[in-house]
Amino acid sequence: MIKPQIAVIGSGLLLENQKEYSLAKELGEGLIDKGYRILCGGLGGVMTAVCEGAKTSPNYSEGSTIGILPTLDRDLVNPFIDICIATGLSMARNQVIIASSEIVIAIGGGAGTLSELAFAWQLNKPIITLRDTGGWSSKLSDQKIDDSRIDTINSVDKVSEVLELISTILEEK
Amino acid sequence: MIKPQIAVIGSGLLLENQKEYSLAKELGEGLIDKGYRILCGGLGGVMTAVCEGAKTSPNYSEGSTIGILPTLDRDLVNPFIDICIATGLSMARNQVIIASSEIVIAIGGGAGTLSELAFAWQLNKPIITLRDTGGWSSKLSDQKIDDSRIDTINSVDKVSEVLELISTILEEK
Amino acid sequence: MIKPQIAVIGSGLLLENQKEYSLAKELGEGLIDKGYRILCGGLGGVMTAVCEGAKTSPNYSEGSTIGILPTLDRDLVNPFIDICIATGLSMARNQVIIASSEIVIAIGGGAGTLSELAFAWQLNKPIITLRDTGGWSSKLSDQKIDDSRIDTINSVDKVSEVLELISTILEEK
Amino acid sequence: MIKPQIAVIGSGLLLENQKEYSLAKELGEGLIDKGYRILCGGLGGVMTAVCEGAKTSPNYSEGSTIGILPTLDRDLVNPFIDICIATGLSMARNQVIIASSEIVIAIGGGAGTLSELAFAWQLNKPIITLRDTGGWSSKLSDQKIDDSRIDTINSVDKVSEVLELISTILEEK
Repeated sequence: MIKPQIAVIGSGLLLENQKEYSLAKELGEGLIDKGYRILCGGLGGVMTAVCEGAKTSPNYSEGSTIGILPTLDRDLVNPFIDICIATGLSMARNQVIIASSEIVIAIGGGAGTLSELAFAWQLNKPIITLRDTGGWSSKLSDQKIDDSRIDTINSVDKVSEVLELISTILEEK
Repeated sequence: MIKPQIAVIGSGLLLENQKEYSLAKELGEGLIDKGYRILCGGLGGVMTAVCEGAKTSPNYSEGSTIGILPTLDRDLVNPFIDICIATGLSMARNQVIIASSEIVIAIGGGAGTLSELAFAWQLNKPIITLRDTGGWSSKLSDQKIDDSRIDTINSVDKVSEVLELISTILEEK
Repeated sequence: MIKPQIAVIGSGLLLENQKEYSLAKELGEGLIDKGYRILCGGLGGVMTAVCEGAKTSPNYSEGSTIGILPTLDRDLVNPFIDICIATGLSMARNQVIIASSEIVIAIGGGAGTLSELAFAWQLNKPIITLRDTGGWSSKLSDQKIDDSRIDTINSVDKVSEVLELISTILEEK
Repeated sequence: MIKPQIAVIGSGLLLENQKEYSLAKELGEGLIDKGYRILCGGLGGVMTAVCEGAKTSPNYSEGSTIGILPTLDRDLVNPFIDICIATGLSMARNQVIIASSEIVIAIGGGAGTLSELAFAWQLNKPIITLRDTGGWSSKLSDQKIDDSRIDTINSVDKVSEVLELISTILEEK
C-alpha cells in the first residue's frame, strides 16, 4: 500500500515571518496527522516550512518528507527533508513532483509554482489552493487553467478545509 | 554564427479556419523573411501553422523549422518540420523549447503554453504575445508573471509588430 | 538526517526462480537490516526482488522502498514499492535513480543497467557489482569504465560482502 | 522531408593532434557530402571535430550541425554548431541526442559515450563504431550490448566504410 503522496508547492523565497510560512507549517503538520506523505521541491520557503511543520505532528515518522531537487547535488536539500531525490533536470524536475503526487496543494507562488500548476492541470491532478496567500494561488482561485477539464482549481481559506477536501477526493477515488 | 532561434508556442488543437491559425502562418512566414529559425513543439495547431507559414517565405531554406517533441517517437512530427528533436520527456520537453530560444512568441494557448510562459519568465527570455488571440496570451498581456523581473510580457496586436519587437530586442543584445 | 539511499539496479526481466532473483531478495533484506533505504527503477525483475526482500527484514518500516518510474503513470509500480516517483522521462529517469543515491549496487543487467553504471561512474558514485550474476555486472567486474576515476568498480561474490563494503564506504565519507 | 539525422558521439576531451580528432573531422565532412544532418552533444573533442569537418564539405549549408547541450546555457556550444538545443537536463540530454537520430556513430569514448550507446541499443537505433579508436567504440566492436536485439554493433575501420554502411541502412528503411 502506497501512502497518499501529496505535493505542496509555493515560493522558495518566503521569509520566516510571513503568513504563508506559518500556513505552510500548519499544512505540513496536518498532512502528517492524516497519514499522508509530503512531496515538495526540496528547497526553501514553502518547501522548508511544510517539512518543518511535518516534523511537529505526533504522527510523524521518518520518511514522511520527500524533496525533489532540480540539481544533481543532493546537498542543497532543506534540513527537514527525509528523502532526497536529486534529478539534475533544472525546472523540468517540476514534472516529477507533480506526476508523483495524487493531489497538489499550492500556497502563494511565482513562475515556478505556475509551471507546476499548469503541469498538474494537464495531468488531471486535483488542485487545491489557499485563497489568500497571494501569487498564483490567489490569481487562479476557483479558476480553470483551460477548457480541457470540467472541474476548477479548488480554493479554500483554511488549512482545515484543505485537509477535508483531500479526504473527500481520496475517498472518491 | 547561430541564426536567432525564435520559439513559437500556442495550442496544439487549433482548427485550420481559426484566426489564430492564420496569424500563426503569417508569423511563420515573417520570421523566415527576417532570417530567423523557428522552434516549436513539433505537433499540431499553432505548431503546424507557424511551420506551414515558414515554407511560404521566399527566404525559406531547408532546416528553418525545428520541432521538439515530447515523445521518443520521431514520427509524430507535423509535415512542415525540417528538423525533429525527439525528447521522450513528456511535458518536461517544454523546458528544452524555451531554453533553446532567444525570444518566445505566444499565440493563444492553454495549460501547456502556460507552463512554457512560466519557464520563459524564469529563464529571463523576452516574451511577446499576440494580444487578442485568447487563452494565456490574452490573459497575460502586458503582465508580469511574478516580481523577479522588472520587465513585463510584451503584447502587440499584429504580426508586423512582433517582428519589429524581435528586431529591437536582438539589436539590444 | 537522511538515511543512506542505496540504488539497486539490474534486469527488469528476471524470473522468480532465477539465482539473481534470490540474490536480489537477500540483498534487499540485508540493506533494510542495516537501516538503509532502497532506490530502484520501480518495475520488475531485480527491482521487484530487492523490494520483496526488503519487506522480510525485521527492521523494515513503511517508506523503505522507492521506485522511480520511467512513465508518468504511477500504476506501473511493483507491489513492494512504498514510495512511487513517476518521472515521465523514459530512460532519462536512470539519471534520477543514480543522482539520488549514495552508492549503486548492480546485479546482472543489460543495456538499461549499463546506462545506469555509466551515469554512476560519471557522477563519481561508488559502484558495487555481484560478480557472478552475468550481464554487465560480470563484464565490468573490477574494471574502470574510463580513466576519469582512479578507483574501479568493486566486485564481490556474496551479499554479505556487499553489505560490509557499503558500511566501509559510508564510514569513510 | 526530414534530412537523415546522424548522431556522432565520442569523448569531449580529444586534442586536435589526436588521430581520433582527424577521423571525426573526416567523418563530419563525409556526412555532409552525403546530404545528412549531424547531431552531437555540442561540446568539445569529437563533437567539435565532427562539426569542424562538416564545414569543409562543399555540400555544407547553414543548419547542418546541431549541438544538444546538457546545460540551460546556450553559450557553451562549440563554434562549429549551427543550431543550439539547450536542454538543462545534465547527462539525461544523452537521451535526446539518441532519440532524435536515425543512426548513431561512435568514435572512441568514455562513460558518457557508453551511456549513449546503451540508450541507442535500447531504442533499437543502428550503431556503427570506428573499430580502432579506443574506448568503448573499440571495446564494443561487433558486440551485442544485451540479448534484446538480434543484430550487433557494426564496427568498421574507415570513414568511407561508415558512409557506405549508413547508405545501406537508410536504403533498407
